[in-house]
Amino acid sequence: RPVRTIQIDSAHIDKGGHKHFMAKEIAEQPTVIGEALAHYIKGGDIVLPTQLDFARLDRIVMVACGTAFYACLTAKYWFEQVAGIPVEVDIASEFRYREPPIGPNTLAVFVSQSGETADTLAALRYCADKAQIAAVTNVDTSSIAREADVNLPIRAGAEIGVASTKAFTCQLTVLALTALKAAHARGRMDDDTLADHLAELQSLPGRLNHALGQADEIAAAARAVAEAQDVLFLGRGRMYPLALEGALKLKEISYIHAEGYASGELKHGPIALIDKTVPVIVMAPRDALFDKTVSNMQEVMARGGKVLLITDREGAAAAEEGTWRTLVMPECPALFEPILYALPAQLLAYHAAVAKGTDVDQPRNLAKSVTVE
Amino acid sequence: RPVRTIQIDSAHIDKGGHKHFMAKEIAEQPTVIGEALAHYIKGGDIVLPTQLDFARLDRIVMVACGTAFYACLTAKYWFEQVAGIPVEVDIASEFRYREPPIGPNTLAVFVSQSGETADTLAALRYCADKAQIAAVTNVDTSSIAREADVNLPIRAGAEIGVASTKAFTCQLTVLALTALKAAHARGRMDDDTLADHLAELQSLPGRLNHALGQADEIAAAARAVAEAQDVLFLGRGRMYPLALEGALKLKEISYIHAEGYASGELKHGPIALIDKTVPVIVMAPRDALFDKTVSNMQEVMARGGKVLLITDREGAAAAEEGTWRTLVMPECPALFEPILYALPAQLLAYHAAVAKGTDVDQPRNLAKSVTVE
Repeated sequence: RPVRTIQIDSAHIDKGGHKHFMAKEIAEQPTVIGEALAHYIKGGDIVLPTQLDFARLDRIVMVACGTAFYACLTAKYWFEQVAGIPVEVDIASEFRYREPPIGPNTLAVFVSQSGETADTLAALRYCADKAQIAAVTNVDTSSIAREADVNLPIRAGAEIGVASTKAFTCQLTVLALTALKAAHARGRMDDDTLADHLAELQSLPGRLNHALGQADEIAAAARAVAEAQDVLFLGRGRMYPLALEGALKLKEISYIHAEGYASGELKHGPIALIDKTVPVIVMAPRDALFDKTVSNMQEVMARGGKVLLITDREGAAAAEEGTWRTLVMPECPALFEPILYALPAQLLAYHAAVAKGTDVDQPRNLAKSVTVE
Repeated sequence: RPVRTIQIDSAHIDKGGHKHFMAKEIAEQPTVIGEALAHYIKGGDIVLPTQLDFARLDRIVMVACGTAFYACLTAKYWFEQVAGIPVEVDIASEFRYREPPIGPNTLAVFVSQSGETADTLAALRYCADKAQIAAVTNVDTSSIAREADVNLPIRAGAEIGVASTKAFTCQLTVLALTALKAAHARGRMDDDTLADHLAELQSLPGRLNHALGQADEIAAAARAVAEAQDVLFLGRGRMYPLALEGALKLKEISYIHAEGYASGELKHGPIALIDKTVPVIVMAPRDALFDKTVSNMQEVMARGGKVLLITDREGAAAAEEGTWRTLVMPECPALFEPILYALPAQLLAYHAAVAKGTDVDQPRNLAKSVTVE
């Protein structure tokens, strides 16, 4: 019995007072993102390994699996919009077998929390000696970090929960910094704009803390979502990859069949699924495309569907009546909204899983690090 | 009453003896694909509009929605593998708002059955005067066909069923011909290889007829699938887009929540959904990657999941025991397998919908041509 007591204490300490590692890791995000920013931002500049010569790049290829793949899809928007570099993103298990053309002016970026994901490592080895290779991992001593030309640690700290949370937002943070650095190095962003964006990034930990303060409302919505067997997530533009990630998170730990879609694709098929038993979770801060998203929501509601809208104050005011539930996130600079909106997506999945009584930190059938093909 | 009789007769004639337009359109595929091939292949060569100068291209951008988007994803494999041209594929509603860089040596291809899809048309207009524009549609007088620089008709004939079937395989056929033509024009394919591939394409109608002969076995499998609320489709490489299309088809007309995944991504999340109530449909002819797919299937079966394997004779022999059901397709040249395997995917969806008693030709919430955003 004394032995058991020590184990419980030890687990309690490791979880920092939280019921699950996943809850602890969600709550740690303001801190670890702040630390990652402090690691890379020095004297008002972004300090990256000097071997990264963005000026000569004509293309970026990004390769990953699962949640890290969705981080890459988000980063594609950043690299293309702010740095003007065409980006191709691929699933590692697809990329490695289609043997795509890789040129000397390609930067190939491999993203993996563990740095040991078998398909991602194999894809890296395919690119070795063909392109410059950057690794974005959470383990400096991992195979992917060691075999890359350039290592960009995400500094999220040990992640124990099988469903990735803080590693995802730290991957996004490091990729956002890299895109800003590339834009500046290529003369597409002046010093003042860079300084503004860095200040915006540095404001994220505070905004994330603000969002964490709404955990109770998110948990109430999650308990309602937990009653569904099937769920759709919708997002447009920068929010589209997050709709995919929100769906993956829910699937992984609550075993609810959630699927992410680009909002504009709803009418091209998935709307046939909609009835009152299939909630639609819409991630849409107010922006230039918000009215189109409202129109998608109205189509869902006109067919008896229930909409859970995750938006900001302006979006909540502008949305027509009739949503099932609305979660209001803090204001956030548009470019970095995917980092903030990851948090309600994670908390929804977490609380839905808790409501269903699944094993949150060790969901069935899944391994933390997929080291086989 | 005489008026009603005439209407019924007319509907009967239009459906060619089939219970639904969709069944008729599935059955027409050998014929319309044969006609499309005859239209484009003359004197052993592929005749395309002479304005298409493949030699000067450095990139192809393909844009579409829904099923046509999956045709583009398939064509990406063809253009990259046989013609060596990098291809970027995007959902029209995403593409038009992210305003991607388009250069003068880009060929932008817009695929739409009706030629009136609002988001696809808007994307075409964004590219006008920036790149050469090709349309792949089923309606020569449509807006997309008229506004393009080059029109590549798919010649599928009128498609009445809301869920696209023969338009999809005719889109694939025309895109395959275009990729072969590009490979030959760029000196990546010699005359003999081109002639071989044309002969392979011309063998497709016979192979499709052979596959249609197995409609009863496919229907029996579909009735078993119809009992599920949730289904996963898996495919690798060229079969990955077809897994997405198979899932979309099932979703559209049977309202079963089917989701397509790249086989290699199974372990990165969706495997958490697997239990005996969630069948996994694996589209995998025997090829170099077949053993990896068998290993994915074994993971599913080890977790109590039921696997419906759609493969060829060699694949059926090589797969380990334990699949729930196996459907054996005729042999097919590897490059063009996606065209053949579309047929069992369509028939599975059709017969599952018939078993569920849904309105196959007019599924709830869907329109044939999405002319609003």
